[in-house]
Amino acid sequence: MKDLNIGMIGYGFMGKAHSNAYSQASHFFPGEYRPVLKALCARNRDKAAGFAENWGYESIETDWRELLKRDDIDAVDICTPNNLHKEIAIAAAEAGKMILCEKPLAMDVAEGEEMCAAVEKAGVRNMVWYNYRRVPAVTLAKQLIDEGRLGKVFHYRANFLQDWTINADVPQGGAATWRLDAEAAGSGVTGDLLAHCIDTALWLNGGIQDVSAMTETFVKERMHAETGQKEAVKIDDACSFLCHFSNGSLGLFESTRYARGHKALYTLEINGEHASIRWDLHDLHRLEYFDHGDDSIVRGWRSIHVSDGDQPYMGNWWVPGLQIGYEHSFIHQVADFLKSLETDAVVSPNFRDALETQKVCDAVLASAAERSWKSI
Amino acid sequence: MKDLNIGMIGYGFMGKAHSNAYSQASHFFPGEYRPVLKALCARNRDKAAGFAENWGYESIETDWRELLKRDDIDAVDICTPNNLHKEIAIAAAEAGKMILCEKPLAMDVAEGEEMCAAVEKAGVRNMVWYNYRRVPAVTLAKQLIDEGRLGKVFHYRANFLQDWTINADVPQGGAATWRLDAEAAGSGVTGDLLAHCIDTALWLNGGIQDVSAMTETFVKERMHAETGQKEAVKIDDACSFLCHFSNGSLGLFESTRYARGHKALYTLEINGEHASIRWDLHDLHRLEYFDHGDDSIVRGWRSIHVSDGDQPYMGNWWVPGLQIGYEHSFIHQVADFLKSLETDAVVSPNFRDALETQKVCDAVLASAAERSWKSI
Amino acid sequence: MKDLNIGMIGYGFMGKAHSNAYSQASHFFPGEYRPVLKALCARNRDKAAGFAENWGYESIETDWRELLKRDDIDAVDICTPNNLHKEIAIAAAEAGKMILCEKPLAMDVAEGEEMCAAVEKAGVRNMVWYNYRRVPAVTLAKQLIDEGRLGKVFHYRANFLQDWTINADVPQGGAATWRLDAEAAGSGVTGDLLAHCIDTALWLNGGIQDVSAMTETFVKERMHAETGQKEAVKIDDACSFLCHFSNGSLGLFESTRYARGHKALYTLEINGEHASIRWDLHDLHRLEYFDHGDDSIVRGWRSIHVSDGDQPYMGNWWVPGLQIGYEHSFIHQVADFLKSLETDAVVSPNFRDALETQKVCDAVLASAAERSWKSI
Amino acid sequence: MKDLNIGMIGYGFMGKAHSNAYSQASHFFPGEYRPVLKALCARNRDKAAGFAENWGYESIETDWRELLKRDDIDAVDICTPNNLHKEIAIAAAEAGKMILCEKPLAMDVAEGEEMCAAVEKAGVRNMVWYNYRRVPAVTLAKQLIDEGRLGKVFHYRANFLQDWTINADVPQGGAATWRLDAEAAGSGVTGDLLAHCIDTALWLNGGIQDVSAMTETFVKERMHAETGQKEAVKIDDACSFLCHFSNGSLGLFESTRYARGHKALYTLEINGEHASIRWDLHDLHRLEYFDHGDDSIVRGWRSIHVSDGDQPYMGNWWVPGLQIGYEHSFIHQVADFLKSLETDAVVSPNFRDALETQKVCDAVLASAAERSWKSI
Repeated sequence: MKDLNIGMIGYGFMGKAHSNAYSQASHFFPGEYRPVLKALCARNRDKAAGFAENWGYESIETDWRELLKRDDIDAVDICTPNNLHKEIAIAAAEAGKMILCEKPLAMDVAEGEEMCAAVEKAGVRNMVWYNYRRVPAVTLAKQLIDEGRLGKVFHYRANFLQDWTINADVPQGGAATWRLDAEAAGSGVTGDLLAHCIDTALWLNGGIQDVSAMTETFVKERMHAETGQKEAVKIDDACSFLCHFSNGSLGLFESTRYARGHKALYTLEINGEHASIRWDLHDLHRLEYFDHGDDSIVRGWRSIHVSDGDQPYMGNWWVPGLQIGYEHSFIHQVADFLKSLETDAVVSPNFRDALETQKVCDAVLASAAERSWKSI
Repeated sequence: MKDLNIGMIGYGFMGKAHSNAYSQASHFFPGEYRPVLKALCARNRDKAAGFAENWGYESIETDWRELLKRDDIDAVDICTPNNLHKEIAIAAAEAGKMILCEKPLAMDVAEGEEMCAAVEKAGVRNMVWYNYRRVPAVTLAKQLIDEGRLGKVFHYRANFLQDWTINADVPQGGAATWRLDAEAAGSGVTGDLLAHCIDTALWLNGGIQDVSAMTETFVKERMHAETGQKEAVKIDDACSFLCHFSNGSLGLFESTRYARGHKALYTLEINGEHASIRWDLHDLHRLEYFDHGDDSIVRGWRSIHVSDGDQPYMGNWWVPGLQIGYEHSFIHQVADFLKSLETDAVVSPNFRDALETQKVCDAVLASAAERSWKSI
Repeated sequence: MKDLNIGMIGYGFMGKAHSNAYSQASHFFPGEYRPVLKALCARNRDKAAGFAENWGYESIETDWRELLKRDDIDAVDICTPNNLHKEIAIAAAEAGKMILCEKPLAMDVAEGEEMCAAVEKAGVRNMVWYNYRRVPAVTLAKQLIDEGRLGKVFHYRANFLQDWTINADVPQGGAATWRLDAEAAGSGVTGDLLAHCIDTALWLNGGIQDVSAMTETFVKERMHAETGQKEAVKIDDACSFLCHFSNGSLGLFESTRYARGHKALYTLEINGEHASIRWDLHDLHRLEYFDHGDDSIVRGWRSIHVSDGDQPYMGNWWVPGLQIGYEHSFIHQVADFLKSLETDAVVSPNFRDALETQKVCDAVLASAAERSWKSI
Repeated sequence: MKDLNIGMIGYGFMGKAHSNAYSQASHFFPGEYRPVLKALCARNRDKAAGFAENWGYESIETDWRELLKRDDIDAVDICTPNNLHKEIAIAAAEAGKMILCEKPLAMDVAEGEEMCAAVEKAGVRNMVWYNYRRVPAVTLAKQLIDEGRLGKVFHYRANFLQDWTINADVPQGGAATWRLDAEAAGSGVTGDLLAHCIDTALWLNGGIQDVSAMTETFVKERMHAETGQKEAVKIDDACSFLCHFSNGSLGLFESTRYARGHKALYTLEINGEHASIRWDLHDLHRLEYFDHGDDSIVRGWRSIHVSDGDQPYMGNWWVPGLQIGYEHSFIHQVADFLKSLETDAVVSPNFRDALETQKVCDAVLASAAERSWKSI
């Protein structure tokens, strides 16, 4: 058993999700490598210490540059707000660390290209936490597509709907709401939510050629948690776009934080010549599947309860019928990362994959700003 | 085109459903025979006249004995409360009329046997309005079973849940609430609701051997609409029973008018060795189907939208995807009755079939009263 | 009781739906006026005669100009392919007939404007068969919006998904497939399916300001049923668009005939500040409703089984829990049309309303052709 | 932080579920006490060592009597087949250990009473792993009932449906299939599955007075994994029963391993005067709730996605919309057990609570054997 020493930067929601994944991966996916929670890095020493104790991190740092200097760190996990990804990632690459970076990769394509160049020059293993690829039902969708069950694809549609910012009293900025602050987040729902939809789409359905987008900011001003002042909201509250995929199919994407009744409803559907697939995050353990090859009198959408041993990842969990949840997608990503150390395979999505998603995001924002179609 | 002259007795909820069925059947299921609304019979002349005008009945009668004397009536439809079925049916048989009788057949098995004897002696065509057999999804279930898709059956379960009598102020007796009056109805949910479940079960899964039942009357006294007095409620508000089918499967049935949130939820499920089937009346245009023969990774319950031309009855309606409703089950029953005149086939369920349901109902009530298993 | 004498032009799918509606309306919605099926008009005399006999039309015509000359016709129902709407409607208006015209109103806005001018000049009652407004669940949605339950609206999305033209062997043109022939239909899914979505949207959510659209024709050539030749397909197989509503909400619309697994899935969702609504045609008797005002621990989407007497139109049908179907939306439209004769109210949608939908359709097609945003 | 030293006996499916719970509880539910995986006990040293290493147990034992002698063990977790529960539990009580025992408590009531007497005499903290009480949706159901939202209860129904033993080649006995061997399991679905349903029912709806039951063994003989011989199957493959609750409501329970299409479908529904509740294990993160107090036009079953911070246990997990799974019910049980050490409160269900479930199970089996109603 070999140790993979992790240095985690950040301790917010994603820091918790990743820490849990490192803690759990080897229990359910035993292999040659095992993650060790070596160091937790955050500016606030007290908060860092509390988080480290809870999760069993062996040490803490308050300056990420110090973390990168340590020889006992093999891999750096970047869980900071988006505006810090680039600087840390490039420095980590230069320090020869493997990098596991939260999504979206960067604030924009230019940053992302620098980051790709850095990791490729340094030759360090790199991965981006687009975790939804590893929800078993989504992984099963990929398998069905790769088996050719859908045939020619006509349509791909996805949306990611939330409702948590309808209240105009939600502030922007600060630890809890930096996602509403353009300085920290780069964009609103485009980088936060649509990026997930785009990553999955590129993986399942191939490249996107052009987009026509529309964005909206419903609440124009919000108190800033750091300045205490009402400031203009510069992120997109909602974003929708039309697109063409390289395989000839049509795409339709939408994301918003103003869809009352939806907490985190990421839904995707693919319509192929022979079969169709649907999935949604609110019931993530199910995949809907329609097979036109079924006898016509008994054709219907099948609700597949993805919990059997022959379905992706599920043989390592419980028994048929017993569902897993959101956190497990991260555990699978760690398990696959660890496995990649054994096999020396590229683990996806890496920085280069995530750059493709960034390109679509940038084109979407440009299209919306200019009210015109944009090629990728 | 030949006329089938109908004489309808009663104008309540079922009178409306049957009148609609006679009006519509030939529009969608053209054949040699066409029903003609010849006479409507009810004690209250004004109400009879209003109903007759609305539906296009050519004449009215206020005494069913007069109706039976008329030569221009081919078939009598009995839509009265249950306690009148026997007398009218026997007289109608003696008058040589075809009979279409509302369910349940009779107040008890003894009455039912007299009625069967009468129609068989007279040799008149007879049918009982267990309409749910002709909801297309249920008819499709029958087809799948007959094709052998389920294999050996292990379980049959059905329930019929309503909530309209929870309010203790609902009266018993009278035109609108005779179903709560034991004098008029014979029993409560057993004859009203479970009888439907049993009829379908006998049709889909064969005979029942023995039962262990439990009944309850939650509201002990209700105002009687005719006497204006509070009187003891003598019907069963709820009834559940266990049973063994002749094919070795186990049955579980439940009915109640105290299931808050369910207006008229008739649900059935059959579990076979190779496949299972589910259906419910609240979404009556769908059949749920699980086929164990599907590839294991994509097995799931299929939600079949029964609206295609190759599914039972649906070729005569609209186009795929467009649903029909409750009333259409009666139209199908009329269409099949008319067809039986052409082919001289027996149309089911006839009085003899309905007597089998009556036997189970009687055994259920006896089992509940005596707290012991009863054989059929 | 007064007669409203109907002259029907056409006997296809819509001719059947409308004939049924005229037959049924007075049975369930009694009023001062009653439709009389006076004449059926179609070029093929034999087919006209068969259809007329089945539905009880008193006479037939083979030339619609002759029909318009008859004094015993009060109202003309136009059920022809779209390219005949204008000519017939204008002539009918000039003949002083009321007009009930199938949707879409016209081949384009220019035609539609001529038609509006004609009926307004003649002062004849006019209506367009956008029947989905009168599915009880949709009518209930309108009521909830009018009651202010949603508050400020953020999002409106709708799609209409079918899969019946995936097979490249389906021909274009002719009686059964004229909807694939641009000469007869004007457009593909835009006029056939999106027009429904747009009509409902304008009714529920107000005007649309601008659109960015994308269309696709997946099968480039199809045999023409009339010429017997392979000819270029000129209709849109699929169409999606983004839009802004005048009330500040964002819209997203999609329609296709290439969504495997969906027969006729018209779905709409509206997200408001206080509540959200969802509906789909495959379970048309249900409305999904989310009320943010519910106690937080028990908030959830409610699945409302629209079958109670206090819900739109349902008091005239059966009893709670028993569903109606597709055809009933037409019956309600006839019932409301008959009622408008009593009250002399405008019945919606009329030609002027339908012209607004036509404007959006034209803008959508222009936007797709030119790859740019178009104002309405 | 104080340690709670755990000695685990067994390493099967439940050993894994409990080990995971001990590993995770303090990460998400920090408190004064923290479980320490001190020793794993199993007869097979190699398997014990492998399991211990994977989960981080500090030591292993191969004889549970030795484990009980150790001073460094505070609490014993009994994850053996049912026929060993009694002996180990009594010895553990005598050794002064806290006990966390898998369900069902015992082979029968007599055993259970001895066990209760032992733990009560010894005064040791005791708990039984009826984990479904702590699925957040089920805990929320309990809260809603305790708040009086249902009013008088009329009906309680539950079933637990599986399909994994339909294949007659599944053996009985041995490590993987001891649940089919009456010697090891005591009973079939009654103790395995119905016991869960009964435990939840007693918790949510109070005591059961009498039962009428039916059992069946569909496959009469199976190969025994230990003897290699075909032997008679003595467990119940399926069991259903009717019952009366002390609060006047009627109960209906069913369990089987022959319901094709259901992997582990534990469903419960409660119908009260004012509201109803439904839950099923296949979508365990949802609770269905019908509130008759809603405005009548918008009444419907609410599908509550139990993932908000104000719903039971969920404030300690992720963010609204992100679901947890099966394993978390065990984590919650450990968290509550740890909390009970701080507060010295009784943690439920304890042995005495589980004995009540055992009484119902015994009555059910006796009723089925004797075909008569049995009082509890």
